[in-house]
Amino acid sequence: MPTSTREKRDKHYGEWFRNVLINAEILDYRYPIKGCGVWLPYGYKIRKHVTSLLRELHDTTGHQEVRFPIMVTETNLRKEAAHIKDFENEVFWVTYGGLKPLEIKYALRPTSETAIYPMLRMWIRSHSDLPMKLYQIGSVFRYETKTTRPIIRVREVTTFKEAHTSHATLKGAEAQIKEATQIYKDFFDACGVPHVVSRRPDWDKFPGALYSVSFDVIMPDGRTLQSGTVHNLGQNFSKVFDIQYETLEGNHDYIWQTCYGISERGIGALLSVHGDDNGIVLMPSLAPIQVVIIPIPHEERGCEIAELCEQVAEKLRTLNMRVEVDRRDGLTPGAKFFFWELRGIPVRLEIGPKDIQKRQAIIVRRDTFEKSACKIGDLPSKISLMLKEMTEELRSKAWERMHRRVYRVGDVDKAKQLLEKKAGIVELLWCGKAECGHKLEEKMNATVLGTPVDIAEKIEDNCVICGKRASDIIRLSIAY
Amino acid sequence: MPTSTREKRDKHYGEWFRNVLINAEILDYRYPIKGCGVWLPYGYKIRKHVTSLLRELHDTTGHQEVRFPIMVTETNLRKEAAHIKDFENEVFWVTYGGLKPLEIKYALRPTSETAIYPMLRMWIRSHSDLPMKLYQIGSVFRYETKTTRPIIRVREVTTFKEAHTSHATLKGAEAQIKEATQIYKDFFDACGVPHVVSRRPDWDKFPGALYSVSFDVIMPDGRTLQSGTVHNLGQNFSKVFDIQYETLEGNHDYIWQTCYGISERGIGALLSVHGDDNGIVLMPSLAPIQVVIIPIPHEERGCEIAELCEQVAEKLRTLNMRVEVDRRDGLTPGAKFFFWELRGIPVRLEIGPKDIQKRQAIIVRRDTFEKSACKIGDLPSKISLMLKEMTEELRSKAWERMHRRVYRVGDVDKAKQLLEKKAGIVELLWCGKAECGHKLEEKMNATVLGTPVDIAEKIEDNCVICGKRASDIIRLSIAY
Repeated sequence: MPTSTREKRDKHYGEWFRNVLINAEILDYRYPIKGCGVWLPYGYKIRKHVTSLLRELHDTTGHQEVRFPIMVTETNLRKEAAHIKDFENEVFWVTYGGLKPLEIKYALRPTSETAIYPMLRMWIRSHSDLPMKLYQIGSVFRYETKTTRPIIRVREVTTFKEAHTSHATLKGAEAQIKEATQIYKDFFDACGVPHVVSRRPDWDKFPGALYSVSFDVIMPDGRTLQSGTVHNLGQNFSKVFDIQYETLEGNHDYIWQTCYGISERGIGALLSVHGDDNGIVLMPSLAPIQVVIIPIPHEERGCEIAELCEQVAEKLRTLNMRVEVDRRDGLTPGAKFFFWELRGIPVRLEIGPKDIQKRQAIIVRRDTFEKSACKIGDLPSKISLMLKEMTEELRSKAWERMHRRVYRVGDVDKAKQLLEKKAGIVELLWCGKAECGHKLEEKMNATVLGTPVDIAEKIEDNCVICGKRASDIIRLSIAY
Repeated sequence: MPTSTREKRDKHYGEWFRNVLINAEILDYRYPIKGCGVWLPYGYKIRKHVTSLLRELHDTTGHQEVRFPIMVTETNLRKEAAHIKDFENEVFWVTYGGLKPLEIKYALRPTSETAIYPMLRMWIRSHSDLPMKLYQIGSVFRYETKTTRPIIRVREVTTFKEAHTSHATLKGAEAQIKEATQIYKDFFDACGVPHVVSRRPDWDKFPGALYSVSFDVIMPDGRTLQSGTVHNLGQNFSKVFDIQYETLEGNHDYIWQTCYGISERGIGALLSVHGDDNGIVLMPSLAPIQVVIIPIPHEERGCEIAELCEQVAEKLRTLNMRVEVDRRDGLTPGAKFFFWELRGIPVRLEIGPKDIQKRQAIIVRRDTFEKSACKIGDLPSKISLMLKEMTEELRSKAWERMHRRVYRVGDVDKAKQLLEKKAGIVELLWCGKAECGHKLEEKMNATVLGTPVDIAEKIEDNCVICGKRASDIIRLSIAY
């Protein structure tokens, strides 16, 4: 009986990830353009559950879905100085229409501020139009110069959920940052993906923002993956794009803005965090199939078995479970087990000749490989409970694993050693000065993630670099 | 009491369409790039119902949804000669990544054959992989040189559903053409959009296809809109992209392919066909809100009225109707009527002080403006029935209007006169020769739509051009 192990996955994570994507028919990365992949039918279904979750979280908090064009004029992209400076080296440019050069170049949007904000200027007239909370899910493009990796670092980001909100006051924008942070917490919680939430240092905030908050996930190889970001844009973009509203008193003021984004990196995190040596493991709520039923072939009682499998499937479907009976010929039960384990289906049922006699089925839970027999009549309640327990345990175990990889460290050498071993995230005391932050990055050859937003504590010691009174905790890691 | 009229719409259809898109908050076409529009929240919801319908029709017939990259390499786009020849003048080219020219140019896909087929080559090995039926919904791009129009002729087609199927035999591909044609009939039927189905003449088939079948809709201005196409690609692309499979006997053969597409033109057709002088009229199944309830303000009984409105809404929601109570302050009931009529909500309920006393509501049906009182307790059954009747009538009336605009004509002069008056579609007898077809197009300054696929009849007369024995009916129109 197999048990869940993660040794191979952890040791060769990059290879594991690339293999699982293609072998579990999630994404084919052999597309002839670097950094572009094809979502395969099974992967597309997982993606659909994830985007549905994102839509639900945004729709129920008053966000409205829209869809903006993929191309942005050069003029608009260049309007905000910090923004274009940061993106200039990674924008794809459309320069020809047919055989003729275009009069104005178009950028494939690297993110959509500069596509959306000129329209907000037309849409927002008065305080009664505010707050306005919009979002869209679509592609953005980055001509990545770093090594590309499927889902993790791509040139066409196919699943970018970005929200853009407009407010009458800074206070309104600040409240929105809190709501957005909560939405992202809820999202990662539903995916069972543990994370740290950090306020990015000033030198690494979103270009054009007042400040940025980031969700970072520790991947199996100990590197962190920035998986969601929330930005307070202040009035910076509204001044550049001249987006004003009429106040209650009849004056005019610039709107306050926030934006926040999550991409398929969220899917990458969720596949990686729960996966094991046998393949991916899916959170039941996000699994395209939650229960797969495998009839064990038998010469005499084959028909009876097939019939019972269908009956069980029908029964479970009435409880809104997503169930499939694997009736394929020419595959042994063992080959089918392997097939569905790789694809992370939460629960497997096996029904064979002995089970028919005993009116039972064998249940196997994907994450633990725990195996048990269950009377046919008890299956619905047993499986419901199992899916619930599995959800809880996947989440709590993932959090436990993460907590073991976040190290509070007293000195730089110890921190450096840990990161050299790809241990995860180190937390040190910091005076808050950029100078000391940069020194830390240099000494450790690591990236500052920022200061904790998700924990609050009293600091009573000194900065590990300059020795002056520390004001904050600083997190560093080897980041993707 | 208003009645449904279409005079203004028919007379100034272009203006009507453009206005209704922005005024009903469907699509904002003022985006700074020509041929690109922004789907607004309400329009996005309509689009979502339409794409859900498309997904359902494809999922239930064994199609699998996938997602391919938006960029295609120049090499692959150029592989099929007829294909690139036809698209060459309308491809957007990406030539720069950041500040550097790209080594290979990328095209923004004008359609996805050349993106998909190199991957099929890797995926298809043997007859057991066939048939393979894939589809995706996403953006394609055309650098249109003709006048652009929102939704109808755009440079970013935002909602292109394209299916691509692979088969072991020509017979399999032919059967697929039938299935695809049926899917599209079902789609337009669910939208209540009348159409003619024609086999395009050889000189106007999809570049690279054996033949093409098209769904054309007569728009209110009498021009036709190609709203869906189905193509039998034969082995043309599979030979170019070298997609072979191992047959049952162990030989190798090229696959047979079909592809078929529907874009947001389907949405354009549906908004236009049912619309009237007061705005759009939505098929109940596609309406984001099916019933809107307007409380009539009253000083004393206002609270009671509001309460009853909510109760009614709750009751209707339990029957899975999409219901909204319009509680907005500062808008008169009249302004609210106008607002929701413009947006095409199928049923409006009004509840005022008199109605409270009589335990009734006033019901108004959007398409007929038929007004009646109904006891509160009878509302669920009355409205259910009304939505059903409205669906049937919208569909049948639209078909009636279309049938009146399809003319069987004996000679070219009469046909020419009709098309000059923008009457719709003319049908003439034809010998089947391209020469005569071209002459017809020239003489009438019109477009050949092709020969009927949706009607079969015996032809017993002569070609209107050459006078030789006619073999077919030929349809012409002023096409968008």
